[in-house]
Amino acid sequence: MYRKELRLSGFGGQGIILSGIIIGRAVALYDGKHSTQTQSYGVEARGGACVSEVVISDEKIDYPKVIAPDILLAMSQEAFNRYAGGVKEGGVILVDEDMVQDIPDELSAQVYRVPATRLAFEELGRRIVANMVMLGALVGITSVVSEQALTKTVLESVPKGTEDLNRRALMLGLRLAEEMAGAPLGGGGGEG
Amino acid sequence: MYRKELRLSGFGGQGIILSGIIIGRAVALYDGKHSTQTQSYGVEARGGACVSEVVISDEKIDYPKVIAPDILLAMSQEAFNRYAGGVKEGGVILVDEDMVQDIPDELSAQVYRVPATRLAFEELGRRIVANMVMLGALVGITSVVSEQALTKTVLESVPKGTEDLNRRALMLGLRLAEEMAGAPLGGGGGEG
Repeated sequence: MYRKELRLSGFGGQGIILSGIIIGRAVALYDGKHSTQTQSYGVEARGGACVSEVVISDEKIDYPKVIAPDILLAMSQEAFNRYAGGVKEGGVILVDEDMVQDIPDELSAQVYRVPATRLAFEELGRRIVANMVMLGALVGITSVVSEQALTKTVLESVPKGTEDLNRRALMLGLRLAEEMAGAPLGGGGGEG
Repeated sequence: MYRKELRLSGFGGQGIILSGIIIGRAVALYDGKHSTQTQSYGVEARGGACVSEVVISDEKIDYPKVIAPDILLAMSQEAFNRYAGGVKEGGVILVDEDMVQDIPDELSAQVYRVPATRLAFEELGRRIVANMVMLGALVGITSVVSEQALTKTVLESVPKGTEDLNRRALMLGLRLAEEMAGAPLGGGGGEG
């Protein structure tokens, strides 16, 4: 059975929930797999933290909670500190390099440092689409969703009038992932 | 242990997912409880159906899936047909009366027919806020969230510039619920 677990984490307002919804929808609507997407709100939520979990499977999903993620996206240092240790051995961690700078060497997952916030600002003039840059990078690196499904779902999910901006941010992330392929930027005992 | 299960169902584009997110956030941020909110995408999603599940508890939630909902919101006849039978005995079903007209007599749950779409249009000129009318009615009838927490979270969650419209839709739903209190509009063997 194919089962992939993703945990997307950061602050409220960074577009974490929307990213989870987009991955969940893309997988089911266009890639023909099952998916669930869960937000948990508890004590953490009151501190402004935000977590969205996505499970992808080729079968009906009976347990929608993430047990040990294959993929962790961390958009804040706090989220990284809390969740990095729980990632599956050989898994993938993506961080926004402007938000997460303190990364230990001894992680057993591969860490990719993505300059999402910086490039969203420098290339597109809008920090708010950092989440789309990250989403592009995540999909480019992990291939959990096809690029076609992703692009289609993003364009259906963002507010009218912002499609072009979001599409450009997504492409930027996908291009970044290509550049990073085979050359992860640290972690897994070989940081730097 | 306090545990309430909600299933919100209908078509994509009716604001079902947003309603689930709002209830989940409101409960955790302002009412001091735990909540999870899950979308499942499978074969159903490809037919345009949309389901969001919310679990509310006073403890950490280990199983975020709905087993038998205490509360079902059905915004389409298809959703009603699929899910009405699974509601807990003595539970509550809310339907949009313009969307769901075929309701059997023998249900063991209490059915409330809410004219959400019609009133959103007649009173506010915008069908798109039917989901907010429904959300107000749901909370007014079931009290799963405090009205203050609900209002605060709605205003934080809707697009800028639409706050007033959404607030008015919500108030309309809350007022409807008051009118309906003690006078459910059918179901539970006493339809009419």
